[in-house]
This record gives sequence, structure tokens and C-alpha cells, in this order.
Amino acid sequence: MVEIIDGGVTTPQGFKAAGVHSGVKYRSLDLGVLYSEVPASAFVGYTSNNVKAAPVQVMMRENSPTLSAVVINSGNANALTGRRGIEDAIAMKQAVASELNLDPVQVGVMSTGLIGRFMDMHKIRYGISRACRELGSGRECDGLIAEAIMTTDTIKKECAGRVRLQDGTLVYIGGISKGSGMIAPHMKVLHGTTLSLITTDATLSPAFREKWQEILDDSMNMVSVDGDQSTNDTCILLANGKANGKCADDDPEFIEALRTVMTRIARTIAMDGEGATKLIEVQVTGADTKEDARKLVKTIINSPLVKSAIFGSDPNYGRIMMALGNSGCKFNLEDVRLTIKGGDMEVPILDSGAPIFQEERAVEVVRMAMDNKEVTILVDLAIGRESATGWGCDLTYDYVRINAEYAT
Amino acid sequence: MVEIIDGGVTTPQGFKAAGVHSGVKYRSLDLGVLYSEVPASAFVGYTSNNVKAAPVQVMMRENSPTLSAVVINSGNANALTGRRGIEDAIAMKQAVASELNLDPVQVGVMSTGLIGRFMDMHKIRYGISRACRELGSGRECDGLIAEAIMTTDTIKKECAGRVRLQDGTLVYIGGISKGSGMIAPHMKVLHGTTLSLITTDATLSPAFREKWQEILDDSMNMVSVDGDQSTNDTCILLANGKANGKCADDDPEFIEALRTVMTRIARTIAMDGEGATKLIEVQVTGADTKEDARKLVKTIINSPLVKSAIFGSDPNYGRIMMALGNSGCKFNLEDVRLTIKGGDMEVPILDSGAPIFQEERAVEVVRMAMDNKEVTILVDLAIGRESATGWGCDLTYDYVRINAEYAT
Repeated sequence: MVEIIDGGVTTPQGFKAAGVHSGVKYRSLDLGVLYSEVPASAFVGYTSNNVKAAPVQVMMRENSPTLSAVVINSGNANALTGRRGIEDAIAMKQAVASELNLDPVQVGVMSTGLIGRFMDMHKIRYGISRACRELGSGRECDGLIAEAIMTTDTIKKECAGRVRLQDGTLVYIGGISKGSGMIAPHMKVLHGTTLSLITTDATLSPAFREKWQEILDDSMNMVSVDGDQSTNDTCILLANGKANGKCADDDPEFIEALRTVMTRIARTIAMDGEGATKLIEVQVTGADTKEDARKLVKTIINSPLVKSAIFGSDPNYGRIMMALGNSGCKFNLEDVRLTIKGGDMEVPILDSGAPIFQEERAVEVVRMAMDNKEVTILVDLAIGRESATGWGCDLTYDYVRINAEYAT
Repeated sequence: MVEIIDGGVTTPQGFKAAGVHSGVKYRSLDLGVLYSEVPASAFVGYTSNNVKAAPVQVMMRENSPTLSAVVINSGNANALTGRRGIEDAIAMKQAVASELNLDPVQVGVMSTGLIGRFMDMHKIRYGISRACRELGSGRECDGLIAEAIMTTDTIKKECAGRVRLQDGTLVYIGGISKGSGMIAPHMKVLHGTTLSLITTDATLSPAFREKWQEILDDSMNMVSVDGDQSTNDTCILLANGKANGKCADDDPEFIEALRTVMTRIARTIAMDGEGATKLIEVQVTGADTKEDARKLVKTIINSPLVKSAIFGSDPNYGRIMMALGNSGCKFNLEDVRLTIKGGDMEVPILDSGAPIFQEERAVEVVRMAMDNKEVTILVDLAIGRESATGWGCDLTYDYVRINAEYAT
């Protein structure tokens, strides 16, 4: 069983990190470097958006099976920047490589921020040089890199856990993430702008890739703030083997631990969605296929009407059923069970295709359930055995404010 | 050439209409009846949402090739109402039939409003009886039925035109529509909550159905306020032949006139989207397939990030390209041309895959173009010959306010 502990990316052995202010952003930290003392097996999930940012293009082309360092900047996404953007992404890798005495192919690169502006490489080079000198481990360094990758995020997203493998080895998993807008990742391993860095001192072989896609699909890829998939989504898992355990590819304890850490990070991203006041969890059960279950979760958490109803605790559950009808998944309306949970309340809504409540007073119960920081929507299609869970947030005045004045 | 005139659904010969207050809504008009003196050829497009409201289910099952009357109520969508909803929808048809001495199969029914509440049939019957007694033609009656079908709409949506057919006959087309939220219709003829009623005194045969699907696809089905397709979308075209012209199925003048009237109504729906301050028109040209062109239009007009950027006149055109990458359509980034138009300004944005503007002062030009009541986004993919145009609106504080307190 995984134990969640206070930690971050440098909690696993052999990892160091730094976060600095390079000047790309006006005041806050905007550049981070993560470093592993030994080359780590690298598993990378990239956005499936067909307009891919320069760093994504560069990383996909090189497709290195191991990485020793990753550089991340915020404030500028280096997306829609043509040939010059590609050159800048390569130059970022080279700058880190030369500071840390690495082969540039051993350096990963990620960017997040405004789309369509060229990078100020003078500032970036200065930041890289400083960050490489300030590398260290411990909670302070964890916090600096987690802060350096934030854009409209209001909270740092960190999580760590430890788990004992079947061979007795105690391994650590640490992770950070950023992301609060343009969030609907659909990351494919080798071929997710949430940027996430997951570190572990467990040992993994390249064959772990498939399992990792599955965990990504159940965690990061089930978060949606606005249904808009970024040009920059990237999630990197680095496993440096410093715990000296056996290969953990098939260790159920490890797999469950990684899933737990990544799911926690995914939930935090949704909870910190732009302008969000509530976390919405959608659980679909009894679906005919896994794809149906995921499709329905996404249709519900992306519906502006469902999201704004939850913001206002408006018991307009008809909108959830509208989303069901639009999802394209298989169901018989008469068999569908819809339940809304919030706080200690669990309110069944439907019976044989029609709402249980008709009277105003009964509807009030639904409003009370919705009036919580976390609202769970449960849909049991009762037609099959597949299920999926996903996370989103409410649509608020602040979402509009933040996004009506982002570039300015 | 069609001439747009001041008119509505009773402008074509032989149509009468009424709009009354039945009491389903607190104060405003909430029930309308449209009547044709002779049975009219009926073409109906229904929502493709798989949770279909009771009136949609009833109409689809009967699938009558001709209709003499249509009853519409607002305030209650009669959706998610199970068996009782079906009985109520049938009872609405029967009530109109008995008032007007018609076969119930000759009566169409549409509902719009809150989902998941049973109809108050006592009020509905009273409203039907009054509306049937008050049927009349002329601008006043046009206005009453147009008002009776409004929900969160802030303006009446009416349009009329007249056109001379190739055989010399002068025919009239009139239309009304409602819809400002839960708008992303994808109506299929016989198998589209915008409710629309289009009347004409031209003569049409059942074979016109295919052409009508095409016009629907280019007009109503290209409107999106929130990407949420309603359980109730229905668009009815009634052609009663009272102009005594030849069959207009293949008359290019008629087809163009109908397209013009329906496109004008579609634009009005987008312009009156919930909370909207701006109309967004997206024109895609040079697409590989028609489907690609439509898909891209929809991805752009549905993106909350694009919509809120336009609300704030925030020149964040990177978001339009993010939407392009997510649309799934075929393109070469280097060939894509993006132009933003507003007022008298037409601003080219991209050159060879990167934005033309980098400097703050140049970006101001984009902001000025966006600071208009109508903003047009032109995307030329330059890869094929297909095109599509669609309409949406900005995402504003008022959208959130309206939808956070709709049921209350």
C-alpha cells in the first residue's frame, strides 16, 4: 500500500531541482531544472493537438529512452513560433547540457505560457545557468521548481508517496504539475498544457510504456477544465533506479502507487482550474465499453451548462442528461441511475427515465448536495461492466475574467 | 434574387398564428399555435441528442408528411418526463386538433424550457383553447407567436423574404426561431433547443427533403452558443402551395431565398446567445473536405478560450490555432492563413506558421479589430476547395450568471 507523504520531485533518491526568476515573467519564478544523478528511464506523453509547440516537436523527434535533466519555462509556450521556435528549444537543451556536462539528447525541454511569441533567449540562458548552479534536493528545492512552472495556477501542485515493492525495496515517487487553463489533455506516450514531472527511484524497463499510457489515460487524461487541449501538454516520468530494487514494471504495488500519486495530482489540477470554486468528479459505471465510459465523463465535465449550474448550485440535473444524450455512448434511458453527492449527502435523481423529484421542496435537497466544495456526479448506465472517473471544475465569473484578459 | 422584407410566419399566404399566456411561465407569453388553411408539406429536423424530449419522440414516431398546425410552448421542455411526458405531448396535439377540427396526426408539437418537470396540462389546455380562438395573420400575430416561444432570448427572431420563381410566381418565406442557450443543433431531417418554424406559400414535394437537410446543415446546424446540443431542437418547414406556383424543389431562386432567410435567423440566434455581447462568425476556406471545414468552424466557435478572448478583445490568436490543432482536420501549419476582421479592419495574423506580429504595438491592431460587435475569424487552410461558415458568440460574465441560476 502506498503511503502519501509530504514531498515532491526530489523526494526519490538521486534527483535534484531548482527554480529561478529568469525575467521572462515580470516578477515570479519562471524557469526550472530537474536533474537526475544517473540517466533515468524516460517515459513521455505528448499532446495530441496537431499544432504542437516547438519543445514538443523537438522531444518527439529525438525520442530519447533516457534523460538526465529536464528544463521547463513558464511565461512563453514557444508555440506557433515556426523554425525560430525549434532553434530556441534546441538551444535550451544545449545550454543545460553544457552547464551540466551532458549530451544534449539527455535533456528534456518543456514550455508553457503565451502562444505565438518568440522566446527571449537572453533571459532564458541566464535563467538556465543560474538554475543549474542552484540545483539541490529537499522540500525547498521541490517547491521552487513547482512554483517556476506555474502560469495562472493559484496553488503549487505536488505529491509524493512511498511504497514497498514485492521484492522488499522501499521506493519513492514524487510529482509536480502545472495547469489551470487550456486543460483537456489527451496525451499519447511517444506520439499531454498540463506539464507534469514524475520522478521515482524505482527501476523501470522500456516495456513499462504501455502500462504508463494506461495510468496516464486514467489520471491526467481524465482532467478537463475547458475542453481545450493545449499545444504543449507534456508529462515526463523519470525512473532512475537509485533504490536498487528489481524491475518494477509488473509490480502491482508500484503500479497502484504511481496511479495514486498521478490521480492526486490530476485532481489538484481540476480543483485549481481557472476561476474554479468547486471540484467536480464524474464517475460513470455500468458502461458497455471503456471508451463509452470515458466519453460520457468528458461530455459531462466539459458541458458549460453543467459547469455553470454547479457553480450556482442550481439543481438543473436535466443538463447532465442532456450531456448523456450528446455523448454518443450506449444506454437505455429507463435503466440509467443518476446520483449527486456533496458533503455527507447522496441524492438519487432518476427513476425509470424521469426525475424522482418534482416538488420544489424536494429539489432543494439537490441544491444542498451541490452546495459543497466537491460535487460528485454518479451515472450508472447499467448496461455493461466498464467504468471511468474524471475531474473538472465549475464555470465561474473568474474563468471569464482570467481568459478575457490573459494576453494583456 | 430574394428580397428581405418586414415579416414573419404569417407573411406567406394561408398561414395564421397566435401567441398567448397560458400560465406555465409566470408572466410572459408561453404558448403559440401556427395554422395553415390547407394541409402543408412538412419537413422536420430533429435533435440528434439521444435523450429526446417527449414531443420530439412523438413527432418522430408519427412522421407525418403533411401538417396543418403546430403548437409550441415555452417554460417547460417536457423532456426527461418518461411515459407521462409522452401522454402530455399527445394530449397537446389532440387539444389543438379538436379546437381546429383536424386529425391529431396533422398537428405538430414542440416544447422548450426546463428539463425534468411534468407539464401542467390544465394551464396548457387553457392556453391552446385561447390561442386557437385568437388565430390571425399580420405583423401583430407574427410577433405574438415569436414572443411565446422565447426562453432566455432577449430579442424576437423573425425574418421574411419574397422571391420570384423561375415560373414567374411570387412566393413568400417567413420564419421565427427561439434559442439562446443549450445551442449546438445538429438536426437531422427525419431521424435538430433551437425551435424554428419556417413557412412558405411555395409548393414543395417530399423529394425536397434532401435539399432541406443541406440548407439546415449550412444554417441552423452551424450555430453554436455553448456546444451543448438540446434534447428538444426541432425545425419545421411548412410549404402550403397557396401561391399556386409550380413545384419549387429544384428552383435555384427558391433554394437561395430559403437559405438566405434561414441563415439570417441562424445569425440572430448566435447574436442573442446567452449573455452575448458579440457575434462571432467563423469562415473556413480551402479545406480538404466539407466535414473538415465544418469541424474546424465548430471547434473554434465552441472553444471557451477563444470565446472569452473575444469577449475581452484579448488578441490571443494562439487560441484559434490551438483549436485548429484540436479539430482533427487536415492542414499544413506553414500554409495556413489566419485573418481577423472587425468593423473596417482586416488583420492578417500568420505567415509561414508563425504570427506576423511580435511587438506590443502591432498586437494592438488585432485588439482594435476584435473590439467590434461582429468579429469574423477567417481561416484559409489552402489545402483543398471546401468551405464552411458558422456563428457563435462570446463567453461573458452574463452567460455564467444566467446559467448558474436558471432553474431557480
